[in-house]
Amino acid sequence: MSSPAAPIQTDALIIGAGPVGLFQVFELGLQDIHTHVVDVLPFIGGQCAELYADKPIYDIPALAYCTGAELVQRLQQQTAPFKPVFHLQQQVMALQAQHDGRWALRTQQGTEFLTKTVVIAAGVGAFTPRPLGLPALQNLEGQQVFHTLPTKPSVQDQQVVVVGGHDDAIQAALLAIEHQAASVTLLHRRSTLDAEASLLSRFDQALSQGKLKFMTAQITDGLLSDGRLRGLQLALPDGSEPTIAVDQLWVALGLTPQLGPIAQWGLSMSRKQLVVNPENFSTSAPGVFAVGDVITYPGKRKLIVSGFHEATLAAFGIAAYLRPGEKIPLEYTTASPRLHRLLGV
Amino acid sequence: MSSPAAPIQTDALIIGAGPVGLFQVFELGLQDIHTHVVDVLPFIGGQCAELYADKPIYDIPALAYCTGAELVQRLQQQTAPFKPVFHLQQQVMALQAQHDGRWALRTQQGTEFLTKTVVIAAGVGAFTPRPLGLPALQNLEGQQVFHTLPTKPSVQDQQVVVVGGHDDAIQAALLAIEHQAASVTLLHRRSTLDAEASLLSRFDQALSQGKLKFMTAQITDGLLSDGRLRGLQLALPDGSEPTIAVDQLWVALGLTPQLGPIAQWGLSMSRKQLVVNPENFSTSAPGVFAVGDVITYPGKRKLIVSGFHEATLAAFGIAAYLRPGEKIPLEYTTASPRLHRLLGV
Repeated sequence: MSSPAAPIQTDALIIGAGPVGLFQVFELGLQDIHTHVVDVLPFIGGQCAELYADKPIYDIPALAYCTGAELVQRLQQQTAPFKPVFHLQQQVMALQAQHDGRWALRTQQGTEFLTKTVVIAAGVGAFTPRPLGLPALQNLEGQQVFHTLPTKPSVQDQQVVVVGGHDDAIQAALLAIEHQAASVTLLHRRSTLDAEASLLSRFDQALSQGKLKFMTAQITDGLLSDGRLRGLQLALPDGSEPTIAVDQLWVALGLTPQLGPIAQWGLSMSRKQLVVNPENFSTSAPGVFAVGDVITYPGKRKLIVSGFHEATLAAFGIAAYLRPGEKIPLEYTTASPRLHRLLGV
Repeated sequence: MSSPAAPIQTDALIIGAGPVGLFQVFELGLQDIHTHVVDVLPFIGGQCAELYADKPIYDIPALAYCTGAELVQRLQQQTAPFKPVFHLQQQVMALQAQHDGRWALRTQQGTEFLTKTVVIAAGVGAFTPRPLGLPALQNLEGQQVFHTLPTKPSVQDQQVVVVGGHDDAIQAALLAIEHQAASVTLLHRRSTLDAEASLLSRFDQALSQGKLKFMTAQITDGLLSDGRLRGLQLALPDGSEPTIAVDQLWVALGLTPQLGPIAQWGLSMSRKQLVVNPENFSTSAPGVFAVGDVITYPGKRKLIVSGFHEATLAAFGIAAYLRPGEKIPLEYTTASPRLHRLLGV
């Protein structure tokens, strides 16, 4: 057994590596504050990389057009002089106040931090699989019910039911056929599927070859015996309520953002948003700041341009918090030798 | 005699064509609100064009480096789809409330507007010559005292005194010699001049040829008789207080920003800044909004990145003001067909 690693000590920990989290790195850098950044995704960029990588954005000031990927690349370039340390594919869990005023923060993957300040730039939250939401099936996750599909599914001789109507659901159904499931049924609440043409074509072919069934149906309950899922209670458009047999239920209903553990940290919230002071973007906990789509204040609009402003004022707020009694000057990157030194120009 | 032109009628008039004023054009465009823009300078871009055209800026989000000129060019490109109408080299003077709730606004150059809303994006103000500040000389401006030099000065047989220590002062002194002044004296409060090498070299040559005098001195008073300026009371570093004769006094102390008439409009101000509601950037007058360096609110920092945010929320505020009772939706340029139509993409 290895002993647990010592916590990483830092002045500022940013939760979220989306565009606002990245600009937070930059603005804290201008305040000579080094940052660590945690994100649940395996790459930086948040929604811009996950959902909009190749989509156009027209309202970033002075960028008449860019894609999500280009925006992320540009922000990464801008933060480079400040050498942030990224901790990707890690979800923050507990946040605990320490006696010395610092915060201890732990990720689900076991990384621990001791930090003087925290900036929550978590956007609308971590994107997680949209749950089916049937209480009866909650304890079967990972055994018979899968919201995240195994990369190498073990389905031989198994009756697989896939629920969903988009690309990921169709891909899952085709994967089950490929791995020689005994039967594959796709359930979707509507009669039409919404996926890219090549997937739909492969799906139609499998359907005509009798390799899978497609039903317009909603699952209303799971039928268990001896603690195992045996069947699914369905509701069909004609009002009938048949049951079908099942060994594995694959849920492919897409991703939905979840604020997750952050919502349990005891910070003041309003309608699932963190309440901040828009003067310095402090939350209700000393040393904990928040910026971007995760926050609310009078007039708040969930726009990247506002997140950039929020990160800027938060950096001033954090500098004032870390250097009590000091005046935090406003300097301009055009002329300040101190800022030029920090930027390495 | 031509009859006066009819006032220009518009929904929104922006005062100031600096980077924040330009982004205000863009954000109002996304709200389907067309804009006219007035600026005292003969070109768009404000300080970025006037003072920083070839200087570096490092803190515009997603632009790791750009010059002032490039920033202006990029913002101009971004606003192009919305076809703003610029009124350059015009200084706003009077702002008057109309009975129908609109505002009448007149420029010093005689252009008149009738507008439903006004956005003041005037930055630190219009750059005007720094005044000498001697009350005794106030009524002589344009006769014997010149803060703005005539392009073709009439100085033959005149004793010219130039005050200042930078390029513009030295250029003025050389200009007076060229136009055959009877005598030319340069006064500067310090013993060293700060100007480009070629100017200093021409200055030294004129000095050695006896064509001008240079004194380290401050002007403490003007000596008048029969309403004419006859002499200047000086204070020298050694404590002596000589007087010198003068026919024309040229003040070349550089430019300084002046908020000018805007400060007289009766809007709530604090320390020379307009007080705004940071929820929608409204001022104390209905329909009059303000953004950028001209405003103050708790936490305000005079940074372009904040001005972009302010212009964005002001656009929502203006849309709500122009469309009472309507909900102003938040749409994203990535996906909104309405915004794509407005942007022409």
